[in-house]
Amino acid sequence: MAKDLLAEVSQGLSKVGKAPLLIGFLANKDPAARKYAEWTDRTCQENGFKFELREVDREELESSILAANEDPDIDGIIVYYPIFGNRQDQYLQQCTDVSKDVEGLSHRYIFKLYHNERFLDGQMTQKSLLPCTPLAVLKILDYLRVYNSILPYGNRLFGRSITVVNRSETVGRPLAALLANDGACVYSVDLTGVQEFTRGAGIKKNRHEVVEKEGWGMQDCVPLSDVVIGGVPGESFKIPTELLREGAVCINFSTEKNFEADVKDKASIYVAAIGKVTIVVLLRNLLRLVQNRQARTQDQAWEPEASIT
Amino acid sequence: MAKDLLAEVSQGLSKVGKAPLLIGFLANKDPAARKYAEWTDRTCQENGFKFELREVDREELESSILAANEDPDIDGIIVYYPIFGNRQDQYLQQCTDVSKDVEGLSHRYIFKLYHNERFLDGQMTQKSLLPCTPLAVLKILDYLRVYNSILPYGNRLFGRSITVVNRSETVGRPLAALLANDGACVYSVDLTGVQEFTRGAGIKKNRHEVVEKEGWGMQDCVPLSDVVIGGVPGESFKIPTELLREGAVCINFSTEKNFEADVKDKASIYVAAIGKVTIVVLLRNLLRLVQNRQARTQDQAWEPEASIT
Repeated sequence: MAKDLLAEVSQGLSKVGKAPLLIGFLANKDPAARKYAEWTDRTCQENGFKFELREVDREELESSILAANEDPDIDGIIVYYPIFGNRQDQYLQQCTDVSKDVEGLSHRYIFKLYHNERFLDGQMTQKSLLPCTPLAVLKILDYLRVYNSILPYGNRLFGRSITVVNRSETVGRPLAALLANDGACVYSVDLTGVQEFTRGAGIKKNRHEVVEKEGWGMQDCVPLSDVVIGGVPGESFKIPTELLREGAVCINFSTEKNFEADVKDKASIYVAAIGKVTIVVLLRNLLRLVQNRQARTQDQAWEPEASIT
Repeated sequence: MAKDLLAEVSQGLSKVGKAPLLIGFLANKDPAARKYAEWTDRTCQENGFKFELREVDREELESSILAANEDPDIDGIIVYYPIFGNRQDQYLQQCTDVSKDVEGLSHRYIFKLYHNERFLDGQMTQKSLLPCTPLAVLKILDYLRVYNSILPYGNRLFGRSITVVNRSETVGRPLAALLANDGACVYSVDLTGVQEFTRGAGIKKNRHEVVEKEGWGMQDCVPLSDVVIGGVPGESFKIPTELLREGAVCINFSTEKNFEADVKDKASIYVAAIGKVTIVVLLRNLLRLVQNRQARTQDQAWEPEASIT
């Protein structure tokens, strides 16, 4: 599945005429971040992309990001979080220029995502980016035929019920919104309860709306779901196999397993990890940044990101 | 002191030729938020501004903010947080258009603040906004002559040592940066330790830099400080009077008192609350938004906030 995606990326790459350069900023001591960087490096090398890891002191990180924003040789920037482990990290996240934000976490991209708008410009030459992990899940669901290709593009999850356990701003909430924007009925579960994301009866709305399901827990939504997506580490949020519908599609994107050991007794398909797909999606986003830049050079339609001028 | 500021605001108001309209969005059940809104309403009425409170369901808040962004009759928007109490609140914060963000918390304003840049545009006709609480503290320090007006503008805190207990992204960190940008040596204290914010030896740098003070705690920096500013509720961060330098200036911006009952035994000046000044600063920011809009209409120099186009 990662290979199919890689083939698509490599086809796009052959048309841009250069090896895109990705810079990774490491400013923490997290061994997982370093490992992920090494993995990115290898995947880049094997597929015609360039990667450079820059280790910087966290107090120097902001000025390093700003310098990379200005450097015309750099196509994409990834920062390994957490750095400060508090809201200063969100400040830093918005310092990466939109045109180099390979993670798709800039406010501009996230805003487009929630509003189900796919292009950055009125001429529809530059596609908006989606954050890597949610997009990887979408690609997997497409590969697994949960997306029904007989339906019109944009409505291909109509009829599906999906539970997403995790409502973080970087993965769970954007993922729930994307799935609902594509037509699904999504139950978003976190510590505070369950929310339902849908495009309304007959998916008549252009984008999702959110309704609180007062008093609901996993026991109410998991049995209703064709697909269950888990992304919360820790025992207390483990998804009980007994709640699963027979033949459910189960996807884990947490570093720890979010499903019980016997999940395969009930699931028709169980995807235990999505890291390989996520890293290919990262390259796909990098490629898109290069394509968007080329589209801007051609038609000058780009509006600069006001926040850093 | 609030009166002096109000006189300044009222003078500016007489030149703009209209009563600026501020919209407050209340989407939580916090009685403190409602009280603050009522207080804002009264201060607006007494001083030639208009205020309208809109109570909305939290699921409707984003579209209500976006509608207010588009409404030409609305000059400023304030949202009473917390709403969801997690990072979704930061997403919402960035949805308010920069040109109507009376709280000064948009990334664009905060970025300018950290970089010690005072104008939004190259022509220097539109001043950047500062967040209300930090700006209120600056105004108080100016009133109390901690700012030394014999020194050049921009360096008027040179020679002062200031401890700020709180390093939140909305108050403590911007406040420490502002004070250091104006020349002070600032010790920023939070749970994780102490950081020193300065413009370097001889305040030669254009903006502050940050150095971790390994192993330091309040006992190391409070005795060195001419000014101690406290903004953390809770007993464990109470500033012990015995650590204070004789004659220190002490300012509390926490809702709970951040100083001990006997603080006046040592302090030369003790400011127990800053709410009244903060609300005048809010009106000053609202006025500035109107002035900036008028400056844009005159010279068309404004770049729209790209994130919401």
